[in-house]
This record gives sequence, C-alpha cells and structure tokens, in this order.
Amino acid sequence: MKDLVDIATLHQLNTQRPIKSKRNRWNVEISDFARLTHNPIRAIVEGLNIQPNPDKPLIALSIGDPTTFGNLKPSQETIDAIRKAIDDGNGNGYAPANGHQEAREAVARYVQHQGLVSPSDVILCSGCSSALDLCISVLGRPGKNILVPKPGFSIYRTLAEGFGIECRTYDLLPERDWEADLTQLEKLIDEDTCALIVTNPGNPCGSVFPRSHLEAIVDIAERHFVPIIADEIYEHFVFPGHEFCAVSSLSRKVPVLSCGGLTKRFLVPGWRMGWIIIHDRDDAFKDVRKGLVNLSVRILGSNTIVQRALPAILENTPNDFFDDLVATLHRHAELAYKSIKKIRGLNPVMPGGAMYMMVGIDIDHFPEFETDLSFVEALVHEQSVFCLPGQCFEYPNYFRLVLTVPEEMLMEAVKRLEEFCEQHYKIDNEQLLLQQNGLLTQMTQY
Amino acid sequence: MKDLVDIATLHQLNTQRPIKSKRNRWNVEISDFARLTHNPIRAIVEGLNIQPNPDKPLIALSIGDPTTFGNLKPSQETIDAIRKAIDDGNGNGYAPANGHQEAREAVARYVQHQGLVSPSDVILCSGCSSALDLCISVLGRPGKNILVPKPGFSIYRTLAEGFGIECRTYDLLPERDWEADLTQLEKLIDEDTCALIVTNPGNPCGSVFPRSHLEAIVDIAERHFVPIIADEIYEHFVFPGHEFCAVSSLSRKVPVLSCGGLTKRFLVPGWRMGWIIIHDRDDAFKDVRKGLVNLSVRILGSNTIVQRALPAILENTPNDFFDDLVATLHRHAELAYKSIKKIRGLNPVMPGGAMYMMVGIDIDHFPEFETDLSFVEALVHEQSVFCLPGQCFEYPNYFRLVLTVPEEMLMEAVKRLEEFCEQHYKIDNEQLLLQQNGLLTQMTQY
Repeated sequence: MKDLVDIATLHQLNTQRPIKSKRNRWNVEISDFARLTHNPIRAIVEGLNIQPNPDKPLIALSIGDPTTFGNLKPSQETIDAIRKAIDDGNGNGYAPANGHQEAREAVARYVQHQGLVSPSDVILCSGCSSALDLCISVLGRPGKNILVPKPGFSIYRTLAEGFGIECRTYDLLPERDWEADLTQLEKLIDEDTCALIVTNPGNPCGSVFPRSHLEAIVDIAERHFVPIIADEIYEHFVFPGHEFCAVSSLSRKVPVLSCGGLTKRFLVPGWRMGWIIIHDRDDAFKDVRKGLVNLSVRILGSNTIVQRALPAILENTPNDFFDDLVATLHRHAELAYKSIKKIRGLNPVMPGGAMYMMVGIDIDHFPEFETDLSFVEALVHEQSVFCLPGQCFEYPNYFRLVLTVPEEMLMEAVKRLEEFCEQHYKIDNEQLLLQQNGLLTQMTQY
Repeated sequence: MKDLVDIATLHQLNTQRPIKSKRNRWNVEISDFARLTHNPIRAIVEGLNIQPNPDKPLIALSIGDPTTFGNLKPSQETIDAIRKAIDDGNGNGYAPANGHQEAREAVARYVQHQGLVSPSDVILCSGCSSALDLCISVLGRPGKNILVPKPGFSIYRTLAEGFGIECRTYDLLPERDWEADLTQLEKLIDEDTCALIVTNPGNPCGSVFPRSHLEAIVDIAERHFVPIIADEIYEHFVFPGHEFCAVSSLSRKVPVLSCGGLTKRFLVPGWRMGWIIIHDRDDAFKDVRKGLVNLSVRILGSNTIVQRALPAILENTPNDFFDDLVATLHRHAELAYKSIKKIRGLNPVMPGGAMYMMVGIDIDHFPEFETDLSFVEALVHEQSVFCLPGQCFEYPNYFRLVLTVPEEMLMEAVKRLEEFCEQHYKIDNEQLLLQQNGLLTQMTQY
C-alpha cells in the first residue's frame, strides 16, 4: 500500500500544480542544436548555378564516395561475409549499444598497429560520421573550442557547431605537402581547447603526414594537455614513398580517440560501419570512456548484419584487394597530376594518399572569374565537369577532385579542364595592371 | 595573389594571438551531454544482485528483442529482399542523409493510414531510437520540458536529459487499461513544454489507446499548442477487440512527428531501420522539417543495403506473416494472463497489443521483499526467471514480462512464478499489524 499511497500523493501534487501561462498560437521553435547543425558544403553547392553543357555528359569529380561509378567494388570476401551473416540468421536482433563482443574483438585485432587495443576500447558506431559525432560530443560543450585543419573536411564544423563548440582552424600548407603550420596550431590552444582533430591521411588534400610531423603534433598536444581526435578513416591509403603512422602509436601521454571504419578501405560507405578506438593514457580518459558508452545508447549502434560479418570481412579480405585499390588511386593521382601540371593556370598538389587531389587556381589569370566558385560554375556550364570548389573546405581558389572515378573518365575530365583553361587563361599585362590599379584605388578608398 | 595575401594576413593574425593560460595536467572533462545521457534501466539492472539458481536454466523475460529466442524470425520476403539488395550491388554507396528516394517513397506508401504522406515527409534513421533522438533534439533544448508516459520506456529520458530537457511524467492508469490521466497531463503543460510523447501501442504496458482517448489527447495538445511525438513503433501490434489509430490521422491542427521502423513488426531490430514521418499542419513544422534534415546529416542515415531492400520488404511481406505474429503474441498474452491471474499476490493487466504485459505485485503480502527490486532478485535467485522490475519504467511494485518468448518457456516461467509466490505469499495478519505498528512508530518519530 505504501507505494500506491506515494503514487496517489504524487498524482495529487501534480494535478494541483497551477496552470502556467499558455501559448495561444502555433509557434514551434527548434533547438539551437538543430539550427546550428549545418552542412557547409551543401550550403555552398546549393548556392552555385550549376547547369551542365547539354552536349557533354557530366563528369562529377565531386563525390567522395568511391562506389559511385561502379569501377571500385567491395571484395568478394566482404560480400561473402555479409551473405553468410544473413544466412546464419543471427544478425537480426539488437546488439549491445557499443557493438557485439566478437565484432569488437575483430576490430581490436585489426587495429593493433595503433598500439595495444582491447575489445573494451572499441565502440562500434553507425559509420565514421557517427564516430566523430560521439568523440566531439563527449569532449566538447558550449564555450569550448576544437582545432580543425584547413583545408579540412566540413563534417567537423557540422558536428561541433551544433553544440556551440567553436572550430579554430589551423593551416595546412600546400608548399609543405599540406603539413600543418605548427607554430600557428600551438598558438590557437587556450584553456578552452577541448580537442585537436588530426586528419591523416587527409581530406581534401590527400596528404600523409610523415612520422616526424605527427610526433611534433603529438608533442604540442602533450605540452598543452589537449586530447587528440584522430580521423583515420583513410588509414593505409598511402602511395609508395609514404608511410601511414597512427597518431596513437606515437603518443606516450596524450590520450587519443581514433575514428575509423569499413567505409573507404572496404568500399562500403553506405553500410555505416565505423568505430572509435579509445587510446587512454594514465586513465586520463576514464570519464571519456564512460561518456562514450553513454552516448552510444542514443542510437544503439550500427547495423547488426554488418557487425556479424565484420570478423570475416576484416580477416578474410586479402592484401591484394587493398594493394590493387591503392595502386589504382596512385595511378590516377599520377596521371591527373602530370596532366594538370601542364595546364596553364592550374597548380595541382600531388597527394601522398587518400583519394583526393587539391588543385590551385591562378585566379588572377582567369579575369572572368572572381573566385573558385565562379570558376567551377563555368567549368560545369561549358565542360560538364564538376569539382568541389575550395571554399567547401574553407580554402578559396582551389578545387578538389576525387581520384576514384574510372581512368578514362578522369582523363576525359582532365582534357576538358585543359580546354577550359586554355580558353579562359589570360596573360594580359594591361588588364593585370588595370586590375591592380583598381585594387589600389579600392584600398585607398577605405 | 589576393587570396594568398589574405591567408598570409590571417596567418599572421593567428600567430600573433597571445597564448592564453594553459593547463598543466591531464584533466579531460566530459560534456554535460555525455554525462547526462544515461540509461536508467541499465543503472537499475546493474545494481541488482542477480544470481540465477544453478539448478534451473535461466528464462529471461526481460528482453524487448523479439528475435532473442529464435522462435520469431523475419519473413522470407524480408530475407529475400536483403539478399537481392546485396546481389544487385547498388546498396554500398552513401545515401542522402535522409535516405534514398525510393526507400522514402516506399515508406510513404506504407504509412498512408497515418494520413497523406509524401516522400519528402519521410526521414530514414538508424533505428527508431535514432528517430526519437532526432525528434527530441529538434524540439527540445535546455529549460524546456517534454511530457512522457509513466510507466514508460526509458529511452525518452535517456535522450532528453542529455540535452537538459526535463521529463515530466503523466500517469497511465492500470485500472483504466493504462489510459492516460488526462487531467494531470493537461496540468503539466506550461509555456516550456516543447512536446508531448504518446506511445501507442505502449511499452511496457502493451496498452492500445482507443480512438476516443487519442482524440482527447490530441485535443489537449491542440488547446495548448504542443506538438506531439508519436512513438508508434508497435503500430499494428493489436489484439482482437482493439484498434490501432495513428495519432496523426486524428489531428487537424496539431503537428505530429511519428516514429516507426522495421524493428519490431518485421522482427529485425538490429538492422537499425527507423523513420520519422513529418505530419505538418499549417506550416507549423516548417523549421522543424529543416532542423530534422540538418540533424540527419550528423550520422548520414541508416544502412543502405536495408534501404535498397526496403521497398520490397514493405511491399512483399504478406499479411499472413503479421497476422501470425500478432496471433502468437495474443495467445501468449492470454495464456500468461489467465495463469498469472490465479497466482496469489500478482495482478496482471491484460494488454491490448505490443509485446509486453505488466504484472502488479501485492508487495504487502510479500513481507520478505521491500520492493519490486528485491522481489525480482529473489525470483532470479530461486527460480531463474528474470523480468524487468517496474522501477525500470518508474513504476514500482510491478514487473514487466515479454510475450515473445517460446510458449513452453513462457509457461515454464509462469509455473515457476506460481511456485515462487506460493512460497513467499503471506497473509499473516499479526505480521501485518506488526509492520503497520512499526510504520506508525517510524512515522511518529519524524
């Protein structure tokens, strides 16, 4: 009876509560979280006037999805594993929010190059975006800031700004193969810096940081007690002459959250299988570990068919498969680099890995175009070639092209790029002078 | 050159920034969001001392996963559809964040009983938890409150409290087949109430609200301009004599977000295929629609193999499959109800649908046990039968049992329940008197 009395009392209290002032019209406000969670790339692309030339089939070098054109397919072993998981019929029920034990064990074995990892250090997520979401959500909060690379992948901003976390950008320097400006990076850190995001190999630059550079980054994090979120979704995507080092493998004191997944390397981005690897150091991540487990409950993990298939996918996919993929990307990178290098007005930066290349535009030599945006618009309009403008990565007067398209398509795109640049490139000194004068006039007006 | 100058200037500005006070030790704090996102059920269950009787195999009537025991399997059509999606090989790439168009079209057709729904009203999510997460995230923010049923599913609290949104509970009344206490519900509303959550059919009660009761709820929402989040993951799980009405189908003015998915009805909870259906009214949800699309970008939607299979799953699964499932659950409910009704000290409430039954405990007649928690602990210890205690649903002195277990297992569990209650039920008036005296003494001491 005790309890019934309690409930009744509570009920009475509730019903005696005075009715507060009420709304008198429909005015459904949305949260700052929903309002501030934005996709900068979509905002920019939607603002472009993109009308392909009807006489030329569109070549989209914009899409960071390696499966788009059908030339790159998941391995037979991956497909076999998923088929078997369906036939076994044990992948239909709920998994623990952080993933099935066997799947986490398989990931722990797969990432041993990152350092000692146990299954309890692994949290399976719904894709690498979800992994990054959890990492940023657990470390950041309003008033805090995170350091993100520039040029950089816009997802960090999408995820952080929803929470009122400030994104401070540190420059990657094209003249140094996109290494980070370490002096600048260090100076950005203050007491509200809650994480340093390191993307390696990089998107959009395709840069692969040498070990010594990563060590220098880790040193900075160590000096200032800033944990690292290592976005390593492109791990092992490295071209000959480069080496991939996991940030965690270089860190003695800095706790690291490494984000990875099947997405790119296994060519199944839509399957949404990502993971966080918790690399704690001296228990600095004790609360973070708890917080990540808490957060994983919000969406209850990733698809269980893929989880059941995960051990076989990770263990059976042969090295040949990965080697072929990297060789293809490297061949495409070299072909594109060599051809674009010859085009007047364009400055490609040869990537060391991943699946992208950044190309600088000598915008002063294209007086018809004020920025990379108008350059890209005209390129689509005339040549039906679409690349993401550098502004999508906060880096104007570049564009990014993806290297995963079929070779003949890539070469056709490069040919059209050449034609486009030949038509629009200007070395008119008079015009340059006029421009400069105009600029001077402008500058003296303010 | 303009740009290089800009970048250099910015760089200079950045490097000139003074180094602010630094941390001098590792002290990685976590966000309130991560700290406050908690799972009440896990907290309670982890606090229990659960040691099954080694002489009796454990029967877990606690798990809300219909696939656990292998007696309930997805339809052949569902499996065929997913196999075909894998063989077609077009389900490996990214989908739009809100889902593939064809999949959203299929869902729109599937939910026409909810009212007119177009594909643009559908957002695919990573399971129904993710759907609820988005709905609560878009409408709520710190300082706001949402109304949730009690007894109720703990996920609402998990999702809301991470954001600092207050959960206000309205009572469901066992004596009225778990209808909501409308007077109380209405009085809980104030200007900070951002949503009313209606779970129908219900978990843990298995209640199915009659149309008139739902209309009364919608009326309250309309009078106070409170949008409704309808958790309808158990839609169509209704036993003979009951009728499922979608909240949206009854609402003329109240905008409704309906959450559903494949999870329960198609017996594939691990596949993580859920959806939000946006039922706008007079453009009240204009911003909400945008906000939901924003939020869907955070995790980039649900598994694409399932998305590709979705049209065939929804269209090909025969009614027989659903009818058989509901008939099984109904048979289990009746068997359990009739048997438990006869057990002294227990008061089952016959559900109208879903896959659960709540059973009240006359705790005064079990003087060895202070609450449902100790009752449940002893039940496991002696009889190896585990049910979730009512406190998991904020409703003490009840327990919930799931109806999806195999029939013989359910009957064995009921038999053990009977034995347990026979052993512990007391009608000792003297003891009752003593207890009451003790209580009186206690009460006068304070």
